[in-house]
Amino acid sequence: MEVNEDNIEKCQKRIITYGTFDLFHYGHLRLIKRAKALGGYLVVAVSTDLFNTIKGKVCHYPYKHRAQIVEALKHVDKVIPESSWDQKVKDIIEHDIDMLVMGDDWTGKFDHLKSHCDVVYLSRTPNISSTIIKMELSQS
Amino acid sequence: MEVNEDNIEKCQKRIITYGTFDLFHYGHLRLIKRAKALGGYLVVAVSTDLFNTIKGKVCHYPYKHRAQIVEALKHVDKVIPESSWDQKVKDIIEHDIDMLVMGDDWTGKFDHLKSHCDVVYLSRTPNISSTIIKMELSQS
Repeated sequence: MEVNEDNIEKCQKRIITYGTFDLFHYGHLRLIKRAKALGGYLVVAVSTDLFNTIKGKVCHYPYKHRAQIVEALKHVDKVIPESSWDQKVKDIIEHDIDMLVMGDDWTGKFDHLKSHCDVVYLSRTPNISSTIIKMELSQS
Repeated sequence: MEVNEDNIEKCQKRIITYGTFDLFHYGHLRLIKRAKALGGYLVVAVSTDLFNTIKGKVCHYPYKHRAQIVEALKHVDKVIPESSWDQKVKDIIEHDIDMLVMGDDWTGKFDHLKSHCDVVYLSRTPNISSTIIKMELSQS
């Protein structure tokens, strides 16, 4: 994005998003691209394996692989581990975040963070999710 | 990579690799990172859906999704479509390629291109492939 008077404020915004990013797919990429487009610096918090176990979420790939794929994306400036539900306020302060961006399957769930930063829910890409992939491949 | 007298020649090398990159995984990323590390500019040719049909290869994701994920990687400078077996000489000339890099499941298969550029086969990451993922998920 070219920096001029109109978008210099947008360029300086620091964004954060959270996710597991198992079986990396186009829906993940599309959300990350749109999150980055809302600002100039994007932090992505990737769920650790232990946190997935706590959530009862079965992951195909370990944290190391999932985090390295997200970190390799041009739109991602920093990857941090997500290891608990309640780390978000600490992350927002530590990384000087202006906006939390999540998929709209989380709509309303993080509104309590609006006193710390903007909270935006983006529409998910229809018919693409790690859960759907696992289901489709288990039936193939 | 810092450019100095020792590595300026390496930095200028133009690399190409070919693949389907279905169900993008850590093994794909590792190969792409190592291919990029051999030079300064990396072209990735991604198999089109029609070419996969010709090869009898069943792909979970369409070309558009697979190509966009590869194109989004920091290590990739350009993505082109791979639509036939015999386009490689044309690609090498058109993109001024110094080195073709492939996984070692293709060892020897592209040695006939050595009159056009260097040909290097890199070891694949053990126990990770799109085929293995499909098999594992179909049994889960």
